[in-house]
Amino acid sequence: MSGLDNASARAEEIVSRCKLLASFSEDPAATRRMFLCPAMRDCHREITKWLNAAGAKVSVDPAGNLRGFYAGAEANAPKLLIGSHLDTIPNAGAYDGVLGVVLGVSLLESLGGRRLPFAIEIIGFSEEEGVCFSTPFIGSRALVGRLDEELLNRQDETGSSVRAAIESFGLNPAEIQHAALKDETLAYLEFHIEQGPVLDSLGRPLGVVEAIAAQTRIEFVFLGGANHAGTTPMYLRHDAVAGAAEWIVAVEHTARNTPGLVATVGQIEAQPGAINVIAGSARVTLDVRHGIDEICERATQTLVRQAEEIANKRGLSLKQNVLLKQKAVRMDAFLIEQIDQAIRQIGCDPHRMVSGAGHDAMILAEKVPAAMIFLRSPGGISHDPAESVEVEDVANALECGMQLLDQLAKSSEFQKRMCRA
Amino acid sequence: MSGLDNASARAEEIVSRCKLLASFSEDPAATRRMFLCPAMRDCHREITKWLNAAGAKVSVDPAGNLRGFYAGAEANAPKLLIGSHLDTIPNAGAYDGVLGVVLGVSLLESLGGRRLPFAIEIIGFSEEEGVCFSTPFIGSRALVGRLDEELLNRQDETGSSVRAAIESFGLNPAEIQHAALKDETLAYLEFHIEQGPVLDSLGRPLGVVEAIAAQTRIEFVFLGGANHAGTTPMYLRHDAVAGAAEWIVAVEHTARNTPGLVATVGQIEAQPGAINVIAGSARVTLDVRHGIDEICERATQTLVRQAEEIANKRGLSLKQNVLLKQKAVRMDAFLIEQIDQAIRQIGCDPHRMVSGAGHDAMILAEKVPAAMIFLRSPGGISHDPAESVEVEDVANALECGMQLLDQLAKSSEFQKRMCRA
Repeated sequence: MSGLDNASARAEEIVSRCKLLASFSEDPAATRRMFLCPAMRDCHREITKWLNAAGAKVSVDPAGNLRGFYAGAEANAPKLLIGSHLDTIPNAGAYDGVLGVVLGVSLLESLGGRRLPFAIEIIGFSEEEGVCFSTPFIGSRALVGRLDEELLNRQDETGSSVRAAIESFGLNPAEIQHAALKDETLAYLEFHIEQGPVLDSLGRPLGVVEAIAAQTRIEFVFLGGANHAGTTPMYLRHDAVAGAAEWIVAVEHTARNTPGLVATVGQIEAQPGAINVIAGSARVTLDVRHGIDEICERATQTLVRQAEEIANKRGLSLKQNVLLKQKAVRMDAFLIEQIDQAIRQIGCDPHRMVSGAGHDAMILAEKVPAAMIFLRSPGGISHDPAESVEVEDVANALECGMQLLDQLAKSSEFQKRMCRA
Repeated sequence: MSGLDNASARAEEIVSRCKLLASFSEDPAATRRMFLCPAMRDCHREITKWLNAAGAKVSVDPAGNLRGFYAGAEANAPKLLIGSHLDTIPNAGAYDGVLGVVLGVSLLESLGGRRLPFAIEIIGFSEEEGVCFSTPFIGSRALVGRLDEELLNRQDETGSSVRAAIESFGLNPAEIQHAALKDETLAYLEFHIEQGPVLDSLGRPLGVVEAIAAQTRIEFVFLGGANHAGTTPMYLRHDAVAGAAEWIVAVEHTARNTPGLVATVGQIEAQPGAINVIAGSARVTLDVRHGIDEICERATQTLVRQAEEIANKRGLSLKQNVLLKQKAVRMDAFLIEQIDQAIRQIGCDPHRMVSGAGHDAMILAEKVPAAMIFLRSPGGISHDPAESVEVEDVANALECGMQLLDQLAKSSEFQKRMCRA
C-alpha cells in the first residue's frame, strides 16, 4: 500500500464492488440473497474473478462458503482467515457482511503479490442471517464442525431442507466435514459494519470488538382479568397492560443504570385488545445483552424479579419462557491489542466496544482466536437499503488491515503461534 | 304483590324466562341475537304470549321494537315506558338487556290486572349492542327520531343495510317515524345488570344510576426510531414502546387519583414488533369515562398533556386522533329519589352510582325523564356466557319496581307531570 491516495481509490472500489454485489439478488426491486440461492452464484463468480486476479486460489466448500487461498512465503505456512458473510436479509443494504469479504479481497490486492510468513484465506460465508431456516451462522458452523445431520435436515417454511439447498447448488452434503477448520489456522479476522450508532455518535471511524455480548431472550405473559373499561373502577382492576407497562419502565430504568447493558421490550400484545376492554393478558418479550456473562445474568435475574414483584403487587400472575440464553464470546486479547495498535498507527483513535449483535466471529472463536474490526455505521442504520459506509472509513479500515498484517508478520508472539499451528 | 314468597317465585320465573330467551339464537352453540335476526321472532313470540296474558296489547314498531301496552285507569292516561334491549352480542349471557324486559313483563303480571293512574308500555328494543352496523342503540334511536336515512342506509360487513334488515323482518322503514315517542310519555325506566363489579364488591343487590358517564376515546401513536436491540445503547434510543409504557403508568396513576374516573389502555401494538428490534412506533388507545363532563374533559386534557410531555422528553413524536367524545347523561333527579326511596322501602340499601357503560336510557333521556336501576352482577361478569344474576336480587328488583309504581301512582309531583303530558 503506497499511501492515502491509493487507499482512498481502493476504498472507492470496495464501495462500488459492494454495490455491484448488492445487485445480485433474488428480488429485482431490492437486495435479497438467501442461503445458496441462484444469485449467490453471481456473487461467487464476481468475487472469484477478483480473488484470482489477486493471486488467490478459489474454491467453494461443501457448505457453500467461498474460499480464496493466498499462499504464504513458505509452502506449509499456517493461515490467517479473513472474512464475513455473503448472504443478506430481505430488503438488505449493500454492506452488512459483504463489506468484510470485499475488504479482505482488497487487502490481498494491496499486498500486490507480496508473500507474508502466513497464508491468508479470504472466506465469504454462505449463511449468517438465519432468515431461511431460523438458524443463523450455517456457513461458519461448518468450519467448527457444527453443521451436523440435525441442521442439514432442518427445513424452511416451504419444507425444503438445508441439505437440499446444498445439493441444488451442486455441492455434496456428505462432504461437509471437509469444510471444517484444520490445525493450520492461526486466527480469524472479520471486518464488519457496526450496525449500531456508537462509533457515529463518538465520531470515530473504527472500533475494536472486545466481546460479542451475552444474550438472553425471555417471553413473559402478565395475566390479569379482562373487564369492561367503563364499569370496572380502577381499584377493582387487574389490568395486564398496566402491569406490563410498569415493568417495561422498570426494565428501561435498570438497563440505563447498568453500564453496557441493553434491555429491550420489542414485542407487546394485549388480549383481548379492544379499546373498551381492560386487558386480561399482555405478552411481552425481553432481550437483554451485555459483554460480561455475569452482568447479563444478574441483570436478567433483576428484571425477572421485578416482573414477579409487579405481578404480585397487582394480583396478576406471570408466565415466563426462556427463548435464548447465549454466553458472551471474548475476542482474542492478543489480536485486540494488535488491532488497537494498528488503528493508532494509521492515526485514528480506536474505540473498544462490545458487539451487541452476533457475528460469524462468535462461531469461529469456538476453535480459533478471533477478532473483529467495526466500521462506523452512519446514523446507526443497518438491515435497511439506507445502510451505508463512509469511503474514508473504508480507506482507514483497509490501511488498518494492511498495518495489522505487517504487525503480525513481524510479531514474535504471532511467530510462536505459527510454530504451534 | 303479596310478599316475599311471591316475589321469589316470580324471580325464579324471570330467571327461567331469561334462560329460555337465551336459547333463541342464531348460533346453535351460544347465544347470539343480532338486529332483527330470525331468532328475534321467536323471542318476540314468547314475550308476546306473556304480555298478552298480563293484559297488554302487543305490537312491533317499524324499528323492530316489541311494545306491550298496558292501559291505565283512564283511556287517555299518559304512559310510563319500562324496557331494555332484546339483541345480544355474539357468545352472550342470558341477562344483559333481556332481564330488563322480562322484569317489566313480570311487573305487569304482578299488578294482576290492577290499573294505575298511568299506562305502562313494556318495550324490548331491537338493537342496542352495535355489533352488526358498528352503531349501537338503533332501536332506541327510533324512539327519539334519530333512526334517520343515513342510519337506515348504513351497511354491515356483508353490505346489507339497516333498511334491508327491517324489510326482511316484514316491517316498513318508511314508517319509522311511527316508532317515535309521543307527548303522552311520562318517563323511561330501565332495569339492567350492572355489568361491573361495584355492587358485588359492596355486597348490595341494587344500584340507582345517577348518570351515564361521559366518554372520550383517543388513539395515540408514539413515534421513535426502530433500531437493533443489541447494538443501540440505552442512551441513544428513541424507544416508542418504552415511551408508551411510561405514559400507560401515568394514565393509571392519574385515574387512580381522580375519584370516579376510569381510564383504560386496552390496545397496544408495537412496530416492527420483533424481539430483537427497538420499537419505532407504538399505537395505544385511551378510553376515559366519568359521570361529570368537566372532570372527564379535564382528566383527558391531563392525559394528553402527559403523553406530549413524555414524548417530548424522549425525543419521540406523538400523533393523536379523537375517536369518540360523548357527554355525560344525567338521569332524572325526581326518579332517582323515588327509586332510592323504593329500594329503602323494601329494606335494601341503595347505592348511587354512575354507569360507565352506555344504555338505551341514555338515548331516551334526550326526550323524556329517564332512570335506571342496576342489579348486582356476580363477579362483575357480563358479555360472557358466565354472566349471571342472583334470584334474590331479581326478587328485590321486582319488589322495588312494584314499590316504585305505587309511589309514582300516589306522587303529587308525578300527577303534575301526568297533567302536563
